[in-house]
Amino acid sequence: MKFEYLIGDIYQKINDIEDKGEIASYIPELLKVNPNNFGVHITTIHQVNFGVGNYNDKFSIQSISKVLALILAYRIVGDEIWSKVGVEPSGTAFNSLVQLEADKGIPRNPFLNAGAIVVSDILLSNLKNPKEDFIEFVRNISNNTTLQYSNKIAQSEKAVGYRNVALCNFIKSFGKIENEPSDVLDFYFDLCSLEMSCKELSELFLFLANNGLTVQNNKSILSESQSKRINALMQTCGFYDESGEFAFKVGLPGKSGVGGGIIAIHPDQYAIAVWSPKLNEKGNSYKGMKFLEEFTTRSESSIF
Amino acid sequence: MKFEYLIGDIYQKINDIEDKGEIASYIPELLKVNPNNFGVHITTIHQVNFGVGNYNDKFSIQSISKVLALILAYRIVGDEIWSKVGVEPSGTAFNSLVQLEADKGIPRNPFLNAGAIVVSDILLSNLKNPKEDFIEFVRNISNNTTLQYSNKIAQSEKAVGYRNVALCNFIKSFGKIENEPSDVLDFYFDLCSLEMSCKELSELFLFLANNGLTVQNNKSILSESQSKRINALMQTCGFYDESGEFAFKVGLPGKSGVGGGIIAIHPDQYAIAVWSPKLNEKGNSYKGMKFLEEFTTRSESSIF
Amino acid sequence: MKFEYLIGDIYQKINDIEDKGEIASYIPELLKVNPNNFGVHITTIHQVNFGVGNYNDKFSIQSISKVLALILAYRIVGDEIWSKVGVEPSGTAFNSLVQLEADKGIPRNPFLNAGAIVVSDILLSNLKNPKEDFIEFVRNISNNTTLQYSNKIAQSEKAVGYRNVALCNFIKSFGKIENEPSDVLDFYFDLCSLEMSCKELSELFLFLANNGLTVQNNKSILSESQSKRINALMQTCGFYDESGEFAFKVGLPGKSGVGGGIIAIHPDQYAIAVWSPKLNEKGNSYKGMKFLEEFTTRSESSIF
Amino acid sequence: MKFEYLIGDIYQKINDIEDKGEIASYIPELLKVNPNNFGVHITTIHQVNFGVGNYNDKFSIQSISKVLALILAYRIVGDEIWSKVGVEPSGTAFNSLVQLEADKGIPRNPFLNAGAIVVSDILLSNLKNPKEDFIEFVRNISNNTTLQYSNKIAQSEKAVGYRNVALCNFIKSFGKIENEPSDVLDFYFDLCSLEMSCKELSELFLFLANNGLTVQNNKSILSESQSKRINALMQTCGFYDESGEFAFKVGLPGKSGVGGGIIAIHPDQYAIAVWSPKLNEKGNSYKGMKFLEEFTTRSESSIF
Repeated sequence: MKFEYLIGDIYQKINDIEDKGEIASYIPELLKVNPNNFGVHITTIHQVNFGVGNYNDKFSIQSISKVLALILAYRIVGDEIWSKVGVEPSGTAFNSLVQLEADKGIPRNPFLNAGAIVVSDILLSNLKNPKEDFIEFVRNISNNTTLQYSNKIAQSEKAVGYRNVALCNFIKSFGKIENEPSDVLDFYFDLCSLEMSCKELSELFLFLANNGLTVQNNKSILSESQSKRINALMQTCGFYDESGEFAFKVGLPGKSGVGGGIIAIHPDQYAIAVWSPKLNEKGNSYKGMKFLEEFTTRSESSIF
Repeated sequence: MKFEYLIGDIYQKINDIEDKGEIASYIPELLKVNPNNFGVHITTIHQVNFGVGNYNDKFSIQSISKVLALILAYRIVGDEIWSKVGVEPSGTAFNSLVQLEADKGIPRNPFLNAGAIVVSDILLSNLKNPKEDFIEFVRNISNNTTLQYSNKIAQSEKAVGYRNVALCNFIKSFGKIENEPSDVLDFYFDLCSLEMSCKELSELFLFLANNGLTVQNNKSILSESQSKRINALMQTCGFYDESGEFAFKVGLPGKSGVGGGIIAIHPDQYAIAVWSPKLNEKGNSYKGMKFLEEFTTRSESSIF
Repeated sequence: MKFEYLIGDIYQKINDIEDKGEIASYIPELLKVNPNNFGVHITTIHQVNFGVGNYNDKFSIQSISKVLALILAYRIVGDEIWSKVGVEPSGTAFNSLVQLEADKGIPRNPFLNAGAIVVSDILLSNLKNPKEDFIEFVRNISNNTTLQYSNKIAQSEKAVGYRNVALCNFIKSFGKIENEPSDVLDFYFDLCSLEMSCKELSELFLFLANNGLTVQNNKSILSESQSKRINALMQTCGFYDESGEFAFKVGLPGKSGVGGGIIAIHPDQYAIAVWSPKLNEKGNSYKGMKFLEEFTTRSESSIF
Repeated sequence: MKFEYLIGDIYQKINDIEDKGEIASYIPELLKVNPNNFGVHITTIHQVNFGVGNYNDKFSIQSISKVLALILAYRIVGDEIWSKVGVEPSGTAFNSLVQLEADKGIPRNPFLNAGAIVVSDILLSNLKNPKEDFIEFVRNISNNTTLQYSNKIAQSEKAVGYRNVALCNFIKSFGKIENEPSDVLDFYFDLCSLEMSCKELSELFLFLANNGLTVQNNKSILSESQSKRINALMQTCGFYDESGEFAFKVGLPGKSGVGGGIIAIHPDQYAIAVWSPKLNEKGNSYKGMKFLEEFTTRSESSIF
């Protein structure tokens, strides 16, 4: 299959370029990772699996979890969720707090920190054992019982997450969060601490390339329409203020995390995960972005 | 072909619902149109053509012209264009002026008025007879020599376009426009005054569903990569602060105009144009949005 | 003395008008106050004391405390304080969070909540027993050992002060606060819970009309230059986004609190305190503003 | 009189310090002035006149004209003017356009460019021969028939005043300007082109220190209350985003111009004008600000 050759070839090329990114420094624990790690893994709906580099190493998926939290909340409360969080790109990172004020506590979209905090609040109100139920949900999708939170990462972020405390209390001040901010934040930091490898990520997210059904055993995680909508949201909002650039250059729905991971989906074809810890100035993996741009260009698999 | 039945059926349904929109009132001449006009036309890369309702009536395509202006400028100056205008969604209509100040005169994307004004300035600097050359370019793509500006519309907008005068002079004050603001605006208002029918629109834009090549005679308007990028831009920025909603509900790259027209593209399949003059509160055709949402849902042709 | 007659006369008049204000509802405990309370008290540097109405009743002085906190911090760290908090009016209440983001955690002035939180942090770092030392300082100025915090008010605000928690953590995220946000906020809420009567307020603040010296026993609280600067700050920033209006209509340096109190200073002449709990839409005492406008107009004692 | 000695002494000192300012470059004609000019002139209500340095040289008073335009409009339409322009400080230069959008075309105060443009529009609607009537009004106040506009300066600014064109058209787009923007701007640029010396300025503005009456012949220019209000406005809004700083350090109502002039008023005492063309980063005369700070400190004549 041509993907395998292509991925290997591009991996070599990108591996050799100078990495101009920087590891995220605001979560102390993340700084301990080896900055030279670089892994890629693709899983197709025809069950092709292929990886190169550190594709089996676990890393902190961080904001990629926001997609999973949104999916679980969407399953539980349905379209009602869109009264609490929007579906529009936010413009810039800079603006997120400004817009929260203008929009009276309704985050522009669920992939901003503010939006994911609101989603966490919804889960907290609707799950019996939020932390356990969420990991169970994720394990079920991927048929992988080894998936785990990292306590170290969660604690490290809790200790210094002042900006998120600010966001959560700000939303609470508008009456848009039901639970106590400290509980919401505890759960939010746990969510973000999930650890996975590129292989696990691409397997887990494959159902979004398959209209909401798992490929392995045909379980329905989302309806076809819901699945398409999650992809649309990742396309317009998945990379903060670099979302337009990602659509423009890569042309796939996707989501990045500050740990250096990126997941991208080609509807009806595949899910691909990339990991390289050093981030560009917009907070997305420097090499990850470069890899995916070259990959969709050479494979002509932008969805546009 | 199933599209024909579907389009006819949805047209009937949407035609009967109450139109909660309002005709744009800020361009006096636009108010003269019959608010009940409603037309749809699809053109596929396999040369299927099908229309219902007022699909042959000409209307003012307004901001849809911004895509054509961008394409011509992109052909002329290449990727250099992205140093003068960005590719990111702007968040909200409200923010456009704010962000222009924060970004020192570089518009967030070419589909904001500010961005299209900068594109107009680039064309003005690079075309011998800008007004003639532009219409010639558009006619060539669609092999349709009858396409015309509307002097009445252009004059009507020039007389009251204070906000655009403000935007243009604001950008000029940052040194980001080369020509005199009054010349740039004259050309900009001309561009926006183009008149077409749904049929003409869907035929004209079909090359964007065909990797940049015209279907009729295989002329290359844009490279494959450029064509995909224009589609990506329409996906993330084509509907002002309703762009996320359009991706979410319709799932096609597209562009709306304040005259009530919408063009949408399904890569490798078709271009579809809808026209209904009354606009929702975000400035996009009320019935047009409803039609396209139902159309992609029932035809399962969202690209996501 | 003409002030006595004037104050009595205006008091009657304002007492009779319809009070279009509303009691602040966001601190539950404040809602328990009698909304019809209305008191006025003047103290002149020639030791004239005169009050009408509820001038001896204690009320929650709230933001008026910010002036006292600033004065104590100014005494301790001197002009160094202005590297952590500005001296410019903020424009609007609405903007305070926006500008905090633009200004990277440096509040525009010490009378915004954000600014007073930064001042509280400075005091926390410089006082041995912050809560005790502060009340001691205030008692010393006014030779009044009965002044007290209200635990009920402080607790009531702590329970629901999400917006202030957001502000404090937001500033902390910029590294502009030294102590833990929860400690800073505890102290801040204590400061704001101070209770005084109009009589006590006008006696306490008289030193600002006397170039920084207490009138009773000539203690120097601030240097002459510092005293003038505090007055200048009250003039430009004392009434949130109604500061311009207050300068325009009343023409005295002053500071309001959400409990309905206002203190105003006429340099070289007097301090006057007004209290009426119902607030206008900008958060300042409805009757208090009306009283002072008429008072300076009829006594021709605007400083301008 | 002590002022004379003080002024001479401070003038020497400030004349010798390094001037860290820069001449305003955005109006080409202003660049032709000698950057080392430095003049001071005081006029007291007891008819003392004293000047040093280039106090008799004419310069472009620029924004200082905004005070005169406001006064004339205030005389004509009375308090109705405050429905079209506010009395609040704007926060920052940066924000002025932002706030204009938030406030739907109502400028925050009459000393912002936006506010002065609105005032110009009011004058245009209410004067028979605006340009002649205005200069006549100014000449009458000061009994000085030699006062003149500078055509060169006005033309120079008209040629490059894109930002002001933007502001004016932006306000017009909100329907808050009656006349055509080009007419309003022509008049506005004329107003700003007035030329005066320090001596003429301090004589002209003395009536604001005299409760609205000219000292020479007791003509009433404004009522006492109106006069105080103009002073209050100058105090809170006279120096853009350095207004708080000026109140804080100088402690007098005043107004600066981009030509390097400053006028300041001490109610019941004097008017003082300073001129030095090089501006600090906030757009106010570098040496002028330093001079006035030292002058009010040493003369203990801050109003606070």
